[in-house]
Amino acid sequence: MHTERTFSVPYRHALRVSQDAFDPADASLADAFAGHLDDPSGPARVMVAIDSGVLDANPDLPDRIRARFAPLDARATLAEPVYAIPGGESCKNDPGALDDLLRAIHDAHLCRRSYLLVIGGGAALDLAGFAATTAHRGIRLIRIPTTTVGQGDSGVGVKNGVNRFGKKNYLGAFGVPHMVINDLSLLATLTDEHWVSGFSECVKVALLKDRALFERIERDAALIRARDMDASAPVIERSAVLHLDHIALGGDPFELNAARPLDFGHWAAHKLEQVTNFQLAHGHAVAIGLALDLAYARAIGLLDPVIADRATTCLASLGFTLHHPAMAQTDALLDGLEEFREHLGGQLTITLIDDIASPVDVHEIDERAMTEAAQALARAEAARVG
Amino acid sequence: MHTERTFSVPYRHALRVSQDAFDPADASLADAFAGHLDDPSGPARVMVAIDSGVLDANPDLPDRIRARFAPLDARATLAEPVYAIPGGESCKNDPGALDDLLRAIHDAHLCRRSYLLVIGGGAALDLAGFAATTAHRGIRLIRIPTTTVGQGDSGVGVKNGVNRFGKKNYLGAFGVPHMVINDLSLLATLTDEHWVSGFSECVKVALLKDRALFERIERDAALIRARDMDASAPVIERSAVLHLDHIALGGDPFELNAARPLDFGHWAAHKLEQVTNFQLAHGHAVAIGLALDLAYARAIGLLDPVIADRATTCLASLGFTLHHPAMAQTDALLDGLEEFREHLGGQLTITLIDDIASPVDVHEIDERAMTEAAQALARAEAARVG
Repeated sequence: MHTERTFSVPYRHALRVSQDAFDPADASLADAFAGHLDDPSGPARVMVAIDSGVLDANPDLPDRIRARFAPLDARATLAEPVYAIPGGESCKNDPGALDDLLRAIHDAHLCRRSYLLVIGGGAALDLAGFAATTAHRGIRLIRIPTTTVGQGDSGVGVKNGVNRFGKKNYLGAFGVPHMVINDLSLLATLTDEHWVSGFSECVKVALLKDRALFERIERDAALIRARDMDASAPVIERSAVLHLDHIALGGDPFELNAARPLDFGHWAAHKLEQVTNFQLAHGHAVAIGLALDLAYARAIGLLDPVIADRATTCLASLGFTLHHPAMAQTDALLDGLEEFREHLGGQLTITLIDDIASPVDVHEIDERAMTEAAQALARAEAARVG
Repeated sequence: MHTERTFSVPYRHALRVSQDAFDPADASLADAFAGHLDDPSGPARVMVAIDSGVLDANPDLPDRIRARFAPLDARATLAEPVYAIPGGESCKNDPGALDDLLRAIHDAHLCRRSYLLVIGGGAALDLAGFAATTAHRGIRLIRIPTTTVGQGDSGVGVKNGVNRFGKKNYLGAFGVPHMVINDLSLLATLTDEHWVSGFSECVKVALLKDRALFERIERDAALIRARDMDASAPVIERSAVLHLDHIALGGDPFELNAARPLDFGHWAAHKLEQVTNFQLAHGHAVAIGLALDLAYARAIGLLDPVIADRATTCLASLGFTLHHPAMAQTDALLDGLEEFREHLGGQLTITLIDDIASPVDVHEIDERAMTEAAQALARAEAARVG
């Protein structure tokens, strides 16, 4: 006997861009909980978790959040206290950090229609997303990313995860957040290094999908590097929408296929983060990974050298260093290809480009050409610096 | 700025019923891996995890599995060794059991297109399902349920989970298995107590959805109790298909709404399992929960006493004891209503029936009437026994 049924699960994915989500005049949070106004079970219950680094830089945030929620009490009530997530990648490496957050969700008596509102960098969002997706088999998640990587890319992602057994994101799940709010004011307290970090993902998605965005970043690179918001905000927003559209319209939101078309430059980036014990920030690792795959695409004759140069120059103009000493250990670096394949499964699939906005999947990598590309990057960076 | 997109994720849900899934002539496993025959990445990798109780009762199982997979080597290869899951609900209470299984999946180098094939009772399936859904953000899962509860109900479910903080299934996720194989031969080694256990879920789904199935169980109860397979197998199969159809066609496969229409009788069942430290098996707890909610529906005038009596008699004829001493602690029992609401979220929603195959959602429970229903059950059981 054989019974087979097919069905679909519908999702809604919403992104807000706000000058300040906790300004009482800002509608983002009011809208997020609008569905509870006439809910017979009353206002929603909301637990707030904040990345400890963000909390240190914005000590008034808990009070501002309370003040914002006070007039929304017909829609949502806060569970106290505000929870602090240990900041940085370490929270994803420590099983205790996940257990602590799950216990806090339990102690706050959140139910499946309650919310975890998380404010923070990529690691805190990944940890909180995994906790929210698995507590009660899924409570609702609102993400307020505080980094340029989060606002331009991972905040609208449908993935979460923690690191286990020495592997980044070994444990995780797919889940669609209830709402993502890009609060531009929260970018003000970033260090310059963290500020620039996210623009490598903007360059990546532009190279894959949007020539106009690439040319805009190329043109405004110096302004972006100088943190001019008029130049930077539209780039971050367009990048977020391109990532969101890829998920919603790309046909494989939960990555069941072997290809991962948004992971241009990412196989080497993941490996560099790992061998540097996550001292190299994700966005900086992605910039190097992009430069490496651009050099490789050029070396194997796939990509016009002029375009490879433009893309690499754009990354350098944003302030990225396009090499890392760890790349000299070529064998360890190339192990990253097999690890990337294993995480995704099936056949190796690496996305490169043969022109701006023209992605190409390749299933084999010429290891000698890749080694030479890494060496060429080292020479180019020495020339740029020196 | 507000960007909103909707999208759907398609799923396929497949159930096989087999006389013996590891007979080389049986096509179920060959079909499960058919997609890998022309996959450029070669045969699939399959890790087998077996409930230790099933392994004890079927010590030749690992060798039979190896013999079945040998001729399938163009489709799938086994990762050794076969993994033993500590049997029973204890594996869901012990965080170490989850960690051990995740580490074994890691050590076996499974990727997102690899398979965890789990053979066992409900607890082992729940644990393995959660590990499979979260390792690499989801590897593929094949379930071979070995109990009547698993084959008639939970095996085709799209939920998994482990217990934490004293709450059943506090941590879990939704996920659709690659295939579910009901291997009837594995039911042979069940104890009589475990054999009868799953038929309460068959009665439940019949009362909710299928008058013909209910009348069949009513008619054949003595044969089913005596483990006559000609009488029992069609009941288990129909129950599994009704559960599968509810998931696939019911409009809310991942339970985003407040109602849980298949959970007739389950609020009390969950509480009785908890207060008895899971010494009371799920199916037996469900039989009591059904009897209680049937008595309540009758007491509040919702359900014709004749139908309530038929349903209760049917459960008793199958061999269920329809009362438990723990029900005398009425306050603790009624706490189960709030716990049930909190797990699901939103407004309390309890599904009762006002006729066979006619479910009714209620949002309030009259606690005095429920207490009296529990007392009536105690008297009726005393009369039946005595």
